[in-house]
Amino acid sequence: MTKIFLDPDRYFSADPLTRMIARELYDEVASLPLVCPHGHVDPTLFADPSASFGSPADLFIIPDHYVTRMLYSQGIPFEALLKGGHPAIWRLFCENFHLFRGTPSGIWLTYELSEVFGVDEKPSASNADRLFDSVSEELSSPDFSPRKLFERFNIEVLCTTDAATDTLEHHQAIRQSGWSGRVLPTFRPDGVVNLDTPRGAWESNINKLCEVSNIDVLDYRSYIRALEERRAFFKSMGATATDHAALTPATAELTPGEAEAIFQRALKGESEAMDAQRFTAHMLMEMARMSIEDGLVMQLHPGSLRNHNEVVFQEFGLDKGADIPIQTEYTRNLFPLLNKYGNDPRLTLILFTLDETTYSRELAPMAGHYPALKLGPPWWFFDSLNGMTRYFDQVMETAGLYNTVGFNDDTRAFCSIPARHDVWRRACANWLAGLVARHILDMEDAREMMRELTIGLARRAYKLESGK
Amino acid sequence: MTKIFLDPDRYFSADPLTRMIARELYDEVASLPLVCPHGHVDPTLFADPSASFGSPADLFIIPDHYVTRMLYSQGIPFEALLKGGHPAIWRLFCENFHLFRGTPSGIWLTYELSEVFGVDEKPSASNADRLFDSVSEELSSPDFSPRKLFERFNIEVLCTTDAATDTLEHHQAIRQSGWSGRVLPTFRPDGVVNLDTPRGAWESNINKLCEVSNIDVLDYRSYIRALEERRAFFKSMGATATDHAALTPATAELTPGEAEAIFQRALKGESEAMDAQRFTAHMLMEMARMSIEDGLVMQLHPGSLRNHNEVVFQEFGLDKGADIPIQTEYTRNLFPLLNKYGNDPRLTLILFTLDETTYSRELAPMAGHYPALKLGPPWWFFDSLNGMTRYFDQVMETAGLYNTVGFNDDTRAFCSIPARHDVWRRACANWLAGLVARHILDMEDAREMMRELTIGLARRAYKLESGK
Amino acid sequence: MTKIFLDPDRYFSADPLTRMIARELYDEVASLPLVCPHGHVDPTLFADPSASFGSPADLFIIPDHYVTRMLYSQGIPFEALLKGGHPAIWRLFCENFHLFRGTPSGIWLTYELSEVFGVDEKPSASNADRLFDSVSEELSSPDFSPRKLFERFNIEVLCTTDAATDTLEHHQAIRQSGWSGRVLPTFRPDGVVNLDTPRGAWESNINKLCEVSNIDVLDYRSYIRALEERRAFFKSMGATATDHAALTPATAELTPGEAEAIFQRALKGESEAMDAQRFTAHMLMEMARMSIEDGLVMQLHPGSLRNHNEVVFQEFGLDKGADIPIQTEYTRNLFPLLNKYGNDPRLTLILFTLDETTYSRELAPMAGHYPALKLGPPWWFFDSLNGMTRYFDQVMETAGLYNTVGFNDDTRAFCSIPARHDVWRRACANWLAGLVARHILDMEDAREMMRELTIGLARRAYKLESGK
Repeated sequence: MTKIFLDPDRYFSADPLTRMIARELYDEVASLPLVCPHGHVDPTLFADPSASFGSPADLFIIPDHYVTRMLYSQGIPFEALLKGGHPAIWRLFCENFHLFRGTPSGIWLTYELSEVFGVDEKPSASNADRLFDSVSEELSSPDFSPRKLFERFNIEVLCTTDAATDTLEHHQAIRQSGWSGRVLPTFRPDGVVNLDTPRGAWESNINKLCEVSNIDVLDYRSYIRALEERRAFFKSMGATATDHAALTPATAELTPGEAEAIFQRALKGESEAMDAQRFTAHMLMEMARMSIEDGLVMQLHPGSLRNHNEVVFQEFGLDKGADIPIQTEYTRNLFPLLNKYGNDPRLTLILFTLDETTYSRELAPMAGHYPALKLGPPWWFFDSLNGMTRYFDQVMETAGLYNTVGFNDDTRAFCSIPARHDVWRRACANWLAGLVARHILDMEDAREMMRELTIGLARRAYKLESGK
Repeated sequence: MTKIFLDPDRYFSADPLTRMIARELYDEVASLPLVCPHGHVDPTLFADPSASFGSPADLFIIPDHYVTRMLYSQGIPFEALLKGGHPAIWRLFCENFHLFRGTPSGIWLTYELSEVFGVDEKPSASNADRLFDSVSEELSSPDFSPRKLFERFNIEVLCTTDAATDTLEHHQAIRQSGWSGRVLPTFRPDGVVNLDTPRGAWESNINKLCEVSNIDVLDYRSYIRALEERRAFFKSMGATATDHAALTPATAELTPGEAEAIFQRALKGESEAMDAQRFTAHMLMEMARMSIEDGLVMQLHPGSLRNHNEVVFQEFGLDKGADIPIQTEYTRNLFPLLNKYGNDPRLTLILFTLDETTYSRELAPMAGHYPALKLGPPWWFFDSLNGMTRYFDQVMETAGLYNTVGFNDDTRAFCSIPARHDVWRRACANWLAGLVARHILDMEDAREMMRELTIGLARRAYKLESGK
Repeated sequence: MTKIFLDPDRYFSADPLTRMIARELYDEVASLPLVCPHGHVDPTLFADPSASFGSPADLFIIPDHYVTRMLYSQGIPFEALLKGGHPAIWRLFCENFHLFRGTPSGIWLTYELSEVFGVDEKPSASNADRLFDSVSEELSSPDFSPRKLFERFNIEVLCTTDAATDTLEHHQAIRQSGWSGRVLPTFRPDGVVNLDTPRGAWESNINKLCEVSNIDVLDYRSYIRALEERRAFFKSMGATATDHAALTPATAELTPGEAEAIFQRALKGESEAMDAQRFTAHMLMEMARMSIEDGLVMQLHPGSLRNHNEVVFQEFGLDKGADIPIQTEYTRNLFPLLNKYGNDPRLTLILFTLDETTYSRELAPMAGHYPALKLGPPWWFFDSLNGMTRYFDQVMETAGLYNTVGFNDDTRAFCSIPARHDVWRRACANWLAGLVARHILDMEDAREMMRELTIGLARRAYKLESGK
């Protein structure tokens, strides 16, 4: 049996001076609450005080495409990973735990097992069944309910991501339950904006939009009204932000006539070649306009080619680790939006990227100029120690710390949240410690920056200060 | 009050062994003169022995887009930064000095305040007025005239950047004044080459070209003659180099008929869609030809999309920190030029980039092959500790040190020149120290390379040895 | 005279803790045999027991474009480098040995001179002639025959790269000679696949294909049959892999009619604009199909624009260091192939790149999903300490170690093989040591990973285990 040991200096530089400074900076923020302004945790977990996480396979494996993709890449079929008995799924995971060596998933999983569930040995073929039983036992205890873990994790606020057509009934239930946990929705309209939403879902989403907004969406103008109504509703439910996915960050304003024509073609199921692309580019402009009006912070997550593996998509659906990044261009694509709205300090547009080449070339220079622009933290594959290091290295000198927004855990794996924030805080402390050790910063500045990275930047950028 | 302290080991690795070696390498070159083969300092500063820098806001803030862009990005209007009273502008700068934490601007400004002006506290709201007064006082003393600082900074040679139509009267004045400072012009013909120069300036630049060259520019041939005349004039005034900006590094030779047709359309204000692009691509070839003939070193700075923020450009003009890089392609774009001239050792073509992805993929492999090609130092946003580290990391193994050209400060902020060279020398020492510590180089080689990086490469590549 | 000294801790981090761990990891694998699954060593060297390497210029300079390109880039003509007397060529090399400071070539050359030939001083103008004589003497001794060095280098298996039309007679000779060295061919069909092979060589290659396969290649179907025949022949000769170069990794299946039409046009010398590109894209699909059928591992090396310097190509031919990388796109280009074959565990497709931006953006995410996909080691310009560090940094977190394939030396310079593997092993040890020092891995995991990187991954990915 091999022991898990979480060293108190883990992830810090091996250099003793840097390590000492990093530890000092880290220690000052280690117990601060977690601000979680963007993620994908299911709000139903908190709606019902007696909700539970299910089996260890439910919690750690089945819904987590970070985990299943790695197992699949080594030849383990999705059938076995998703449709087997839960002890068997868990065994596959334990037998192949070595695949996660040196990966962020390996770091998070180890932290979760050790810190959350008290497991002190590395998963393996030989302890798989025993671990399944012990984790199952923990999970069945009332101390391991989602609400209890929310409190234990010291989460200050958790923002979920919700379709524009969502009725937010689980968010309603949370508010009405009297529970003190702060869980807020985020307005994500992709399903009613992106005309090429897979499997012709756009039409049915529009029908839902009519229903929930009580507005007959018959043309572009009523569509816009319905969206504005939904944003107002989300805002009334506590939302402070919207979120937008798009294949590219192209922005371009259509004339009212063009917008109407494209919209009508889509309603009739007669979309033409470039319609979806042009409409999304236009709607990003519209969303920036609405953000200026209603104050919701706008997030843009472009550059993922979804469902690259169509065979897997047909059989097992979305989110199987087959979303593959593509080259992304921001300088020219954002030109229309930034020229129209980028100088307006009422707008906060937070950009993310899956193309790290844009950090130093495009994103940092733009964020270091436009008042409306801020850069989100390293995203998805780059939510990792190396990803963070590259981000600090390539973004900060040009954008400056204050044009960034702290951390997003961006996860659907609730129990990985403390692990992810811990990695971020340690990576930040280590980055700042390196600057102090090399006399680029003094400790006074580093301390303030550390606090900003942990709490301040995220709270302010996402307008989450009120409830702190 | 927080003290400024410039540690003698600043910017070196935290590792004690590497730091010790870096210090040894740095100490050997620290007092060598500054070779400044490319920059944007205004020669008028040196033409008149009694010229002065103006107020602290004139010196540190108003003309420096590195500084104003960062303040603007955080919502401070350009009106306040450019058009306010100078003490008020200075106060805005001091109040927001934290925005420069960890940025190259922060490093340079701290060095200038401390080393040049003897300020020993970090600017802040509480000391802003006091600092304004004390820096103003220094600036009004004769010891702080541009010529005196030139001498104090130990500048061996300073090359400016001058329009092809410039009469170089300030350079004349410097030469005739008997002052020993070596200030040389550089031939920059963008204004008469790039047909899409903003605000229709090309036509008026051509008129100026006629005037200063005494050649009637009526067709492509007389245009070429006029350019050759200007190059000869610049050379007679001490110029050793030309400089060329272009959106892309595209090169392609036009037939004489095509060149003439495009030129005639431009003269009539009837340029067609691709004319500007094709003409620039052609003229880069022409400039390489002329360089082979007259021996002027050719510099190419592509990849900046100028004036991205049109709103700011309309109101406040050029150089407001809104020039944003774009993806740049060199392998195919330089194919025509390199195949025609790249094997000719009489040509020196120095390439720069704002797209760091081209370092290891395109630029280093080409520079490691073509005799005519050399790589300029990390440029603009990459004139920074991290930018230099990435450059050493990604360029040197493949290009080899001897296909690079040392450092350019490339600045209009005269007082930042020693700071910038200091950062470069320390970054070089640290890079070499890391190679020595890891037994990739021995000290003998490292010492020679250090001297080359500081002085030798720049002197030779820019043909500035004669006057040393 | 300056001594060469190969420090036992060379290339490890300067940090004492990391260095100590690296040394421990390295020491455990330092004496393991060399697995060489991909390279360009000439098999004739081993066919004849009395073969020799020729002069020091033959061995170190003339055939090695890594060396000649660097000398050429500094103005030394290819005439002098390739056509001079060998002592004179050697002298040029020694006089300019400083050009290789800090380059991988410098590291390999130093290792070869020191470890293989016992030279203990840096080459220079003053010792050039003496070194020529002493290395010549060594080379003439029977201990320095290719076979003897193969054994001394402890090579477990060496795969060469051979045209599809090659009769493999030298491989035959090796097998029949009774010598125990394991030298295997690799099937490289570029010459009969890429219709735009320079100088119209495709037609003559097809003629050769008819000859060696005993199949009349008259149409697309007989062409495919001939290729299948050749693959079977290579396999019978011990080949376990194929290798494919292409300008881009585009893949796309043609209809049988389209394939036939393009093939017929090519036979008649009437290829149209996109024919070569489309045919290569189609043939990559075909090769994947054949690999699934016959079990040969498929390697793809895209992204090099060959013979960028046409002047040099016309006069001195291929491989003069003028192959320059271009931007490469994998996500969309591999979509057809991966959707058709990427889920099939019978296929192993090993991808290489000359565009490092694709590591974290495209290659690692795809390799971390598709069962058929694995990533080759850092290639060509990136077969270097920094290239390896960037590879570990950008690939491993997302792809996971087990979706990579260890090391390829990929060289035609036989004597550089131990040097290259030594660099790889040290770089691996240092990478893992950094993870251990920062408590990301424990020593148990690091030891297993070290062994995988040295031997295990390459053996398994290339199906070379049988003969170990």
